[in-house]
Amino acid sequence: MQTLGIALMGTGRMAHVYGPKINAHPGLRLEVIYNPRIASATKAADLYGGRAMDDLDAVLADPAVDAVVIATPTDTHVDYIEAAARAGKPIYCEKPLDQSLSRVDRAMAALRDHPVPFMLGFNRRFDPDNAALREAVKRGEIGRLNMLMSWSREPSPPPIEYVRASGGYFVDATIHDIDLLCWIAGERPVEVMAAGSCMFDPQIGAEGDFDMTMTTLKMPSGALVHINNSRACAYGFDQRLEAFGDGGMVQTLNHRDDNLVRWDKARTVAREPLKHFFLERYDQSFYNALDEFHAAVTGNRAPSATAEDGHAALAIALACAESARTGRAVAPEFA
Amino acid sequence: MQTLGIALMGTGRMAHVYGPKINAHPGLRLEVIYNPRIASATKAADLYGGRAMDDLDAVLADPAVDAVVIATPTDTHVDYIEAAARAGKPIYCEKPLDQSLSRVDRAMAALRDHPVPFMLGFNRRFDPDNAALREAVKRGEIGRLNMLMSWSREPSPPPIEYVRASGGYFVDATIHDIDLLCWIAGERPVEVMAAGSCMFDPQIGAEGDFDMTMTTLKMPSGALVHINNSRACAYGFDQRLEAFGDGGMVQTLNHRDDNLVRWDKARTVAREPLKHFFLERYDQSFYNALDEFHAAVTGNRAPSATAEDGHAALAIALACAESARTGRAVAPEFA
Amino acid sequence: MQTLGIALMGTGRMAHVYGPKINAHPGLRLEVIYNPRIASATKAADLYGGRAMDDLDAVLADPAVDAVVIATPTDTHVDYIEAAARAGKPIYCEKPLDQSLSRVDRAMAALRDHPVPFMLGFNRRFDPDNAALREAVKRGEIGRLNMLMSWSREPSPPPIEYVRASGGYFVDATIHDIDLLCWIAGERPVEVMAAGSCMFDPQIGAEGDFDMTMTTLKMPSGALVHINNSRACAYGFDQRLEAFGDGGMVQTLNHRDDNLVRWDKARTVAREPLKHFFLERYDQSFYNALDEFHAAVTGNRAPSATAEDGHAALAIALACAESARTGRAVAPEFA
Amino acid sequence: MQTLGIALMGTGRMAHVYGPKINAHPGLRLEVIYNPRIASATKAADLYGGRAMDDLDAVLADPAVDAVVIATPTDTHVDYIEAAARAGKPIYCEKPLDQSLSRVDRAMAALRDHPVPFMLGFNRRFDPDNAALREAVKRGEIGRLNMLMSWSREPSPPPIEYVRASGGYFVDATIHDIDLLCWIAGERPVEVMAAGSCMFDPQIGAEGDFDMTMTTLKMPSGALVHINNSRACAYGFDQRLEAFGDGGMVQTLNHRDDNLVRWDKARTVAREPLKHFFLERYDQSFYNALDEFHAAVTGNRAPSATAEDGHAALAIALACAESARTGRAVAPEFA
Repeated sequence: MQTLGIALMGTGRMAHVYGPKINAHPGLRLEVIYNPRIASATKAADLYGGRAMDDLDAVLADPAVDAVVIATPTDTHVDYIEAAARAGKPIYCEKPLDQSLSRVDRAMAALRDHPVPFMLGFNRRFDPDNAALREAVKRGEIGRLNMLMSWSREPSPPPIEYVRASGGYFVDATIHDIDLLCWIAGERPVEVMAAGSCMFDPQIGAEGDFDMTMTTLKMPSGALVHINNSRACAYGFDQRLEAFGDGGMVQTLNHRDDNLVRWDKARTVAREPLKHFFLERYDQSFYNALDEFHAAVTGNRAPSATAEDGHAALAIALACAESARTGRAVAPEFA
Repeated sequence: MQTLGIALMGTGRMAHVYGPKINAHPGLRLEVIYNPRIASATKAADLYGGRAMDDLDAVLADPAVDAVVIATPTDTHVDYIEAAARAGKPIYCEKPLDQSLSRVDRAMAALRDHPVPFMLGFNRRFDPDNAALREAVKRGEIGRLNMLMSWSREPSPPPIEYVRASGGYFVDATIHDIDLLCWIAGERPVEVMAAGSCMFDPQIGAEGDFDMTMTTLKMPSGALVHINNSRACAYGFDQRLEAFGDGGMVQTLNHRDDNLVRWDKARTVAREPLKHFFLERYDQSFYNALDEFHAAVTGNRAPSATAEDGHAALAIALACAESARTGRAVAPEFA
Repeated sequence: MQTLGIALMGTGRMAHVYGPKINAHPGLRLEVIYNPRIASATKAADLYGGRAMDDLDAVLADPAVDAVVIATPTDTHVDYIEAAARAGKPIYCEKPLDQSLSRVDRAMAALRDHPVPFMLGFNRRFDPDNAALREAVKRGEIGRLNMLMSWSREPSPPPIEYVRASGGYFVDATIHDIDLLCWIAGERPVEVMAAGSCMFDPQIGAEGDFDMTMTTLKMPSGALVHINNSRACAYGFDQRLEAFGDGGMVQTLNHRDDNLVRWDKARTVAREPLKHFFLERYDQSFYNALDEFHAAVTGNRAPSATAEDGHAALAIALACAESARTGRAVAPEFA
Repeated sequence: MQTLGIALMGTGRMAHVYGPKINAHPGLRLEVIYNPRIASATKAADLYGGRAMDDLDAVLADPAVDAVVIATPTDTHVDYIEAAARAGKPIYCEKPLDQSLSRVDRAMAALRDHPVPFMLGFNRRFDPDNAALREAVKRGEIGRLNMLMSWSREPSPPPIEYVRASGGYFVDATIHDIDLLCWIAGERPVEVMAAGSCMFDPQIGAEGDFDMTMTTLKMPSGALVHINNSRACAYGFDQRLEAFGDGGMVQTLNHRDDNLVRWDKARTVAREPLKHFFLERYDQSFYNALDEFHAAVTGNRAPSATAEDGHAALAIALACAESARTGRAVAPEFA
């Protein structure tokens, strides 16, 4: 297996997800951890290995760096993409590309000018259950796809600072479901209708954002899509898919801490609580996403989950936000 | 138990549902079966008992008739309500009251002028599982109600003649979910958004109607409601509810032909197919609805499921239809 | 439907099960309630109707009595069977026939001499789920039957007086599973092996009885049968069957108080507790058993669940008790 | 992590299980593959790496060999244990130790004389679900343990040559359940009762062996244990546990090829078939067992699953075989 030397860009929450996964992958080597503040880079390198660096040009010029994994704050993604593309380094970038379509356009232009392998970290595509459901749909197990539904309910609202910087609930979270469902359906909506509400954390409402939404996508084939999002969920991280076709239905199951069935005085039959949040639930999918990146780069092919996918998902999410604000069906503007 | 002599108005599909249920109820006696065409009345009376009559005035003047059950074509409901109200007879009327709000207003005026006990046959409220879910919500089992979802997928599209006379999918079918969900939530929407499509039977699309819809209701409390309707469903009559609150979630289960779990080479664990359609699935609820009617009339109280509920459900269904046509959020106009 | 006038013999626990069921059946009329102590008979007649009588000869000579339902203490069953048979009355007798094989032989002799329709109240055969499992086996759904398993765990130990009079756990309770499983398998064991223990109520052990047992039946076909009994069960009345064949497996499900699925912080997915005990769980089966009796008597055929079935089940239960005592495989002695 | 150089003894079926697992473990290095026939050793070394060797003394004298994993035919286990113990090498030995108690005694004597770390490959203890069930029992989740049940039904009978060399079904297969259940219960039976039958493969019966058995263990605490074994199972490799205590019950679930729920015309709700056989179902547990071995050896402590456990399980399995032959309860003879 060909080994790629990786420069991990960033030392925040997502970098702590990718660091251990890079180490666990036999074809990836954590070569560099980059942060413009060297102290942060050093601290992360102490945890995960690799050389701490704070000089971007030096990182991108380093012959031991075969590819970059961008896990920096969202508003810096495009800058790093431009720099890495110019340097000719294959790029794995955590989602979303950016919160603004014009900046996403800039990233896409850079990738056209400097065509390096690029992969966007829509990790839910790489979850084995989500992928198995898509396979079942593609195999025709349920006939023609008519309806698609996704639930993504988070255990508890994020800190209000996170919300403020998030670009809004649709851009921050619904975008995951949007990408996943368009990928399963094999098409993108002609029109979206969305409704939002704020019932869990009034601070979120005070910021003009929602903490629960219901979104409808109308697909060119006629298929209808429902997305169910909530910033709070008493029973854990509720992640479900339901695909309904003229031949039947297929659903994914939630994941739990163990596989036991419990019978007791209070409640029978009971199962353990759900996986707490995305780190626990999608642990495997981050690894699988890096594996796809590795396979594509070493196999000389474009990774799945492209920049264009990121542009489309963002355009749809922004259309959802507009629909929720105006009460009108909105057609997303694709590139 | 006080026995009520019932005049069953009509001899069509729904009359064949109510006839045996009236006979099975110890407090109801099938006294008269009415149809303006005496041959039809006689045929039904041969099946279910009771005297066949074709003279409306005579029926309503008959001292053995304590109450009427209206199971005639929808566009005649209001006329029979007016006549029965004037005659002072308690009325059970199959849903919907009518397809036009103005005619529903006429019925409500008649009931104001001649205040007889009146019950609208929203039978799904009387399904034990639906009622148990509402009880769980009312008991506070899931805390504050945030989201409510209903699936109603029918096994196969009705004849096109039925569709033509139905008033459209929202008025014909979604109205059931609307009433049920408003009853569970204890509130009615301030705004609705709906999307429709036609993917199963092109004849339905040619009539300007939909055969699958997704509907969103925005409630005054902030709660969001999703209704999922389809005129076809390969695996039977899919009837599910999901209530999501800040303390948890509660769901109803589909009903099956038996309670066995099967393990075999092809598929494990498997259950039998779902109940075929509403006659099989809601068999008990029609009985329970008549029982509520009997208890209210003999107990000298207003039955639940009022004419005003029928007006509200129709107003919401018409708003859904308008939203699906215009792509705009629509506020229902309540009486 | 032909109506049978019933004399209900006895006013104890089981009589209170049968009284309301007789009243609910359209083809049965509770004509007489008999107890040698007239005060008890009168009290029961006040509850369920019928004439209170204390004179056995008068009851059996009463022309309005078409059949008897024997729900007296077990050790009087045979006497009443003999008397009713001599009087030519069809007999429904609560299980067990008796605790001693020689007395059962006496009952069988009486029925040979006076051949009236006789049915033994092995009500679990008439439970819809148990019957559906047997049908699935008979239809060949699982191919050839290889293993059969039954769980019957009671919510809590009975009063010690009940235990003392019960004939022992095998004769009192395992006999139900024995009859049900032999009926499903269509054969009776050539040999049994049983093990017992006392872990819940030391008083039961002090009486020389067990409060939990595991029993193995070896069938002539080679099929193996496991019976799992317990006098206590924290989560309710656990009643399950599992039939394993060379083509697959079929299982019954436990019954619950409602059909909802609950998700909360503590335990997800959770279902409500099981039905508490046999009155709740087998409510329908008692009615169905009486219905079989009615259909057989009015249809002029022998009811299923014969006296010979009762003899066989008792012989097997006694063999189990001997095996548990001696640690040896025991061959039951059939009539 | 300290790395152990491993000599893998044997190149048969189980060696092909352990080879890849040794390679996957970061603390194990496949140093040598041994087979007295060098051609077989070379072939295996080509697949999994390591040096092919055919000289036992040279293997055990090799300073790069820190420990041995014995995966040779069962009847050679004891010889290799004696040799490796004399050479002072830590030993992991695939189960069973041997089919005869006297030879097992010899192995135990060798381990007493040359006390090296020794672990017996009772891999099912290391399955996460089985371990979680034991933890739940130990934590007191179900109160006092009263009953324990294990199902192990294999997809199809092994070749008759395998059966002939297996030592009989109890010694070959039931021994797994015996060890697992004694480990969960924390005690060993005072008496066993077993029944066997041959309904799947008449060749197995012709060898005097069974292809389905039901076994009962009576524990010193009073707890009763049921083991359900079958050499064939139409729906895959059925592996279940059920622990019943005075506070409730806990069960493990079978494993499947995917986590999807399927609804279609024929059967709803359906899940995919079970994992085919032990290689698929217990894939993880073999890795975990090696991990326990690594941790114990490098951590200077005795591994769990001792030679004495192997002796006890064999003694119980032999007692089961005797009980099934004689129809008598048999007390196992422990060392």
